[in-house]
Amino acid sequence: MKAWEANIRRVVPYVPGDQPKGDRLIKLNTNENPYPPAPGVQRALQEMKAETFRKYPDPTSSDLVHALAERYGVGEDQVFVGVGSDDVIAMSFLTFFLSEKPILFPDISYSFYKVWADLFRIPYETPALDADFHIRTEDYMRPNGGVIFPNPNAPTGLLLPLDEVEEIIRRNQDGIVIVDEAYIDFAGASPAETSALELVKKYENLLVVQTFSKSRSMAGIRIGYAVGSPILIRALNDVKYSFNSYTMNIPSQILGVEAVKDEAYFRETVSKIVETREWAKGELWKLGFSFPDSRANFIFASHRRVPAEQLYEALRQEQIYVRYFKQPGLDNHLRITIGTREEMETLFAFLKGYLG
Amino acid sequence: MKAWEANIRRVVPYVPGDQPKGDRLIKLNTNENPYPPAPGVQRALQEMKAETFRKYPDPTSSDLVHALAERYGVGEDQVFVGVGSDDVIAMSFLTFFLSEKPILFPDISYSFYKVWADLFRIPYETPALDADFHIRTEDYMRPNGGVIFPNPNAPTGLLLPLDEVEEIIRRNQDGIVIVDEAYIDFAGASPAETSALELVKKYENLLVVQTFSKSRSMAGIRIGYAVGSPILIRALNDVKYSFNSYTMNIPSQILGVEAVKDEAYFRETVSKIVETREWAKGELWKLGFSFPDSRANFIFASHRRVPAEQLYEALRQEQIYVRYFKQPGLDNHLRITIGTREEMETLFAFLKGYLG
Repeated sequence: MKAWEANIRRVVPYVPGDQPKGDRLIKLNTNENPYPPAPGVQRALQEMKAETFRKYPDPTSSDLVHALAERYGVGEDQVFVGVGSDDVIAMSFLTFFLSEKPILFPDISYSFYKVWADLFRIPYETPALDADFHIRTEDYMRPNGGVIFPNPNAPTGLLLPLDEVEEIIRRNQDGIVIVDEAYIDFAGASPAETSALELVKKYENLLVVQTFSKSRSMAGIRIGYAVGSPILIRALNDVKYSFNSYTMNIPSQILGVEAVKDEAYFRETVSKIVETREWAKGELWKLGFSFPDSRANFIFASHRRVPAEQLYEALRQEQIYVRYFKQPGLDNHLRITIGTREEMETLFAFLKGYLG
Repeated sequence: MKAWEANIRRVVPYVPGDQPKGDRLIKLNTNENPYPPAPGVQRALQEMKAETFRKYPDPTSSDLVHALAERYGVGEDQVFVGVGSDDVIAMSFLTFFLSEKPILFPDISYSFYKVWADLFRIPYETPALDADFHIRTEDYMRPNGGVIFPNPNAPTGLLLPLDEVEEIIRRNQDGIVIVDEAYIDFAGASPAETSALELVKKYENLLVVQTFSKSRSMAGIRIGYAVGSPILIRALNDVKYSFNSYTMNIPSQILGVEAVKDEAYFRETVSKIVETREWAKGELWKLGFSFPDSRANFIFASHRRVPAEQLYEALRQEQIYVRYFKQPGLDNHLRITIGTREEMETLFAFLKGYLG
C-alpha cells in the first residue's frame, strides 16, 4: 500500500440491484411504477428549452416547494426537497442525529439506514421485528438519539397504524422522529388515515419523508421531499446549502411540478396498482405463497414448498426479475413489485406451470 | 429551546448568490456561459420520452462515463461523475481527507472548501496568496493531510503553470492532491499545456475535477466529473454508492453525452469567450481598472478610484449584475463574468458614463 492510500475511506461498497435491459423482460425488482408519469410531464419536456440550461437552477427549487406545500396544505417553510428520498434522508441523518445516544430503527427495514449511520458515525440499535414482521412500538420507548422507520415498512409492506405511529412520536420528545413514507400512497383509500403528514402540525420534532419515485412514476428524475416544522426544514436547508447549493437540476424542478399538478392521474394510477395488488394477493395465495398483508406496491412472499432462491433463479431464466435478499431472516422470501395486470398474469402463468 | 432541538446540527448557512429574474437584465455574477448548450442537447430533449422516467436511472451513468473516458483518452475506471463538481468535491473530501493532519488550500479560493472541511470535521490550513494573488507553491511542501486548489484559481482567475502544479503533486506523495479545474477550458489554446489531466497517468494520487457548468453551458443540468487512477475512482464510487446510488437523473445522463459529443461547438464557444475576455481586459484597463491576468471566464477587477461596492450598487441599479464579495482582502474587487460581446459593451458603455 502506498503512503497516500492510508488516507482513503474504506466503505463496504453497496451493489445496486440489477437494472437489466431489454424489451421482453418483466421488471418487478425495484418497486418502480408500471405506468408512465402524468401526461403533463411529457408536454413540459417538449416545451423545455435547452438554452435555459446555461444558467444555474433555482437553488431553493421554489416552484416545486410551492406546488408541494399547496398540495399538502402546509407552509412553504415546511417543505424540503432533495435528489430522491435517499438524499433527503442522508441529509436528515447529518442534520438531526447528533446525539451520543443510539438512534433506533427496525432490524428489517430500508438497508441504507445502517449505511448512513456507519458513514456519519452515528451510533444505532436495531430492535427486532416480531415473528410476523411487525414493528413492536414498545421497542421505541427507550432512551435514544432519534428514531426512523419506513411506513409501510420495506421489504415487508406492513403498515403501522397511525395511532401507533403517533404513540412513538408522543413518547419521543427528546429527539427527532422520521417517518419514511416512500410507499404511503399505496396504503389506503384515505391518506389521512395512514400518513403521518397530519401529525406535523402537532409535533415539531416529526419529519415525514416521501418520494416521487413510486406513486408518481418518476424514479428516473430523482425527487424526494420532507415535510416538517419550520425549525426542522430550516436546519435541513442550512446543512444542504453547506453541502451543495445546486442539486436539483432544471428538468427535475419543471417536471416535478407537472407531476404534482395532475391529481386525477395520480389517484387513477395509484388505485390501479392497489387493485392489482389485492388481486395478486389472491393469486399468490392460490399458488401456495404466504406473505405479510402488504400496503405498499410490492408483496414480500415465501412459498410453502419451494425455496425463494430457486424461484428467483427460475424466474430470471424467464426474464422475470423479482428481488431476492440473500440475508438471514429474509432469504426465503421474494419481494415482488406490483406491475401491470398483464405483467402479473405472465408471472403467475409461469409460476402455475413451474410449481405445477 | 426544546429538548429535541439539542440534537440539530448548527451550520453557518451559505447564502446562494443572487439569481435575479427578468429579460432586460445582464447577468455577469455567477460565471455562467453566455451561449446555449450544444445543439444536440436541444435535439435530445425533443426526443426524450417521459415514460422512461418511471424507472431508476443507470446508477453508474455508464453512457456518460464512456463518453468522458473517450473524450479524455482515459479508461472508464478512471472517471467519476457527480451532480455538479460541488458533489464530486464534497464526495472527495469525505473519501480522501481522513488524515489527522490538516489539509491545505489557498486562503483565497473556492469558498466551499472551508465549508466542507468544517462539515466533515477535517482539519485545514489556508496558506496566504502573495500580494499579487499568486499561489506560492512552497507553502504546499509541508506535512499535510491532502491538498486542493482551483486552477485557474477563483475568484482571481490566475493560472498556476503546469510545471508548478506538477511540483506540488511530486512533493506530496503521502496524500491525495485534488486540482479543481472548473475553469481550465478557458485557460489556453492547448489544454495539454494547462490541464493536470495528462499527469493522471503519472501520479496515482492525483484527482482532477472538471464541470459541465462553465465551458459546456450546462450549469442548470448539474454535471461534474473527476479523472484519476482506478484506485481513487473506485474509492469515490464506493463512498458515493454508500450515500445515494441514484443521484444523476435520466435527463442529465442523456444530455451530458450530447454535450461531450459536439467538440466543434465546444471549441467555438470557448474561443469566443476567450476572445471577448481578452478584448474586455483592454476595455477595463482603459476605464482605470486593474486585475490579475485572468485565464478563466471572469475578471477580478478593482478600480483605481471608485470603491468596488459603490460600482456594484450602481451596476445593480442598471440591472447589470456582477459579483461582489464583502470580505477583507476581496472587498475592493468585482468579479465580472465574461458575457457576450454585446453584454460586455453595455457594461462598458455604462461604466464609461459613470466613471467619466
